[in-house]
Amino acid sequence: MNVTLRGHTQHFRTVAFDAAENSVLLIEQRLLPHEFKIVATPNFRATAAAITDMVVRGAGAIGATAAYGLAQGALDFRGRDLKKFSAHVEAVYQVLKNARPTAVDPVNAMNDVRRHMSPGQTVAERQFLALAAVEEFAREDVRHCEAIGRHGAKLIRNGMKILTHCNAGWLAFVDIGTATAPLYAAQVQGKKFHVFCDETRPRSQGATLTAWELAQQKISHQIIADNAAGHLMQRGEIDLVIVGGDRTLGRTGEVANKIGTYTKAVLAARHNIPFYVAIPLSTIDWNLKRGFDIPIEERHESEVLGAWGMISNPKSEIRNPRLVRRAYVRIANPTSGAVNPGFDVTPGELITGIITPLGIFKPQELWLRRHELGFELQ
Amino acid sequence: MNVTLRGHTQHFRTVAFDAAENSVLLIEQRLLPHEFKIVATPNFRATAAAITDMVVRGAGAIGATAAYGLAQGALDFRGRDLKKFSAHVEAVYQVLKNARPTAVDPVNAMNDVRRHMSPGQTVAERQFLALAAVEEFAREDVRHCEAIGRHGAKLIRNGMKILTHCNAGWLAFVDIGTATAPLYAAQVQGKKFHVFCDETRPRSQGATLTAWELAQQKISHQIIADNAAGHLMQRGEIDLVIVGGDRTLGRTGEVANKIGTYTKAVLAARHNIPFYVAIPLSTIDWNLKRGFDIPIEERHESEVLGAWGMISNPKSEIRNPRLVRRAYVRIANPTSGAVNPGFDVTPGELITGIITPLGIFKPQELWLRRHELGFELQ
Repeated sequence: MNVTLRGHTQHFRTVAFDAAENSVLLIEQRLLPHEFKIVATPNFRATAAAITDMVVRGAGAIGATAAYGLAQGALDFRGRDLKKFSAHVEAVYQVLKNARPTAVDPVNAMNDVRRHMSPGQTVAERQFLALAAVEEFAREDVRHCEAIGRHGAKLIRNGMKILTHCNAGWLAFVDIGTATAPLYAAQVQGKKFHVFCDETRPRSQGATLTAWELAQQKISHQIIADNAAGHLMQRGEIDLVIVGGDRTLGRTGEVANKIGTYTKAVLAARHNIPFYVAIPLSTIDWNLKRGFDIPIEERHESEVLGAWGMISNPKSEIRNPRLVRRAYVRIANPTSGAVNPGFDVTPGELITGIITPLGIFKPQELWLRRHELGFELQ
Repeated sequence: MNVTLRGHTQHFRTVAFDAAENSVLLIEQRLLPHEFKIVATPNFRATAAAITDMVVRGAGAIGATAAYGLAQGALDFRGRDLKKFSAHVEAVYQVLKNARPTAVDPVNAMNDVRRHMSPGQTVAERQFLALAAVEEFAREDVRHCEAIGRHGAKLIRNGMKILTHCNAGWLAFVDIGTATAPLYAAQVQGKKFHVFCDETRPRSQGATLTAWELAQQKISHQIIADNAAGHLMQRGEIDLVIVGGDRTLGRTGEVANKIGTYTKAVLAARHNIPFYVAIPLSTIDWNLKRGFDIPIEERHESEVLGAWGMISNPKSEIRNPRLVRRAYVRIANPTSGAVNPGFDVTPGELITGIITPLGIFKPQELWLRRHELGFELQ
């Protein structure tokens, strides 16, 4: 998507590749929204470290980064011995896999690249196939998000006020994003609308990443405390909710997503506000039988007890504050602890529709139309 | 309630009076939870400034502070001329009234003191009556909170997990508080329970003030992000919700309280979890006909866009972090704005009961039993 730097607007992908330098280009997401910087990783180990250290985050984006890292590692190989090359690629694969051990996207993406490499008869041929495969993987990620945007934009009418939670934006994918894709597509169609970004405590991805994305795309938006959405709905200020999904159960239509998503779904149902989840097909889990069995990551309590930000003066110009330096402040009582579940599970009954690259489905339809949606017996 | 300072546990009221020095003693709430300090205001102007500058906050607490300030001002008068004395008291009244112009508690409290002074035949007699009246006013505030605690404690059973929102604790009253009163009473009765404190963004009163109070009282508790309550309810981790109320409509049972209260009520109703509001009778509004007409204060966007805390290292010992200095950090994207409604309105249908000093009432019962509850035709 577009980023405006010193008055010049340029297009960037979250993850890209510099073939001449054999390096992966990543937006340094830990500096956002306060600073925009592109990092070029010199080798596959640096690419793995960027995943571990959360320079890049978001399911689609780390999948593509690992795939690029695998091609990068393969291209670094010197020699013609296919056996040694295979052992090298296996080692690269393991390093990248261990960069974020619980994530499934890097593994799926790298398996895809390996499948495409294997017909190659020489090292050079396999290297070429690896690069071609990862470029196609990234293009496909973009095409899927574009298709989500095309289907989702039909839901957006002029004058609508739309609520989002967390960040399932272009920073979480190679480009465009999922929950944000309908917004960007509707904007291209010339529709006028306003977005409320839930802050999304404790990590505030709505206030930092989503708000930054929307500001760069010049989409009208305001940040709200997570506590305020219910009041706005009660006053008729929200017409539509669109969120992303980390894992969707194909059998039940339940969606696991960032903590707080369930609350917004309950509120939307009470106010008869349509609640949509936008996801790529790769996040559908066809095996798990009930949402209760989805493991919920318990994250570190320091996220709840404080916050990261730029030290500044709240009385200075609030729209362009003078920012001093990044710091963690302890907000909470220093002798108290916290519980910090990272995700929650929204039942299908609260979800109006699931926006996929193949169209919008009722949660209950997923299983019936599973063959169309890429269900494979495992 | 109790505060432990350097190993010694002492009892403090939020607002107290030093008759020998003619000064009002206040807990400096802006330093909490990171520092505990008692401020002694030397004269009524300093007392008014303490209200304006939010050294003291919370309906009951600022009411009592203004009442003490009025007595303090009256006691400062030198001379025997009743007319001059009355003019002086009127001037003191105006200064204290203007300290927080939209609050009703200071006015009600000072009117009560003035009513009790008026039978006095001499300046000295009126000064004596003023001090007696304000001491009785403070004692009554405490008795009301004690009564709320007595009635509310019946709802608490051993092993319960209780959710609170914001701070309607002893720091908001002269002592004990409203939403916290049942907790403190149940503790005295030897009941064991656990409290989840909603952080309560944007001002985080749950994470700062309520958590500090509970830690001082040694009540088992944990802070949660406002987003996490729905998930905990879904997993059966919450048995009871108790919150305070800023204004309760006697005609409809609707309750205006800190932003986010409505959301918790909606969630509790979905999970069949009892949802109680604890209030003193003085906050019942017998006139207003619908909650929609309660003015909702729109607060400054800087509260949502950032947070106040102590600069610290999140990797240092999190239960007793090394705190450096107080600072405001800008969390959100620097070019984005925010909407910041301070309160929301919960309809009576979502409220299991209203805990008052006179017992627990269904929201629908208030109007039927209005004469018992102090309704006066205005």
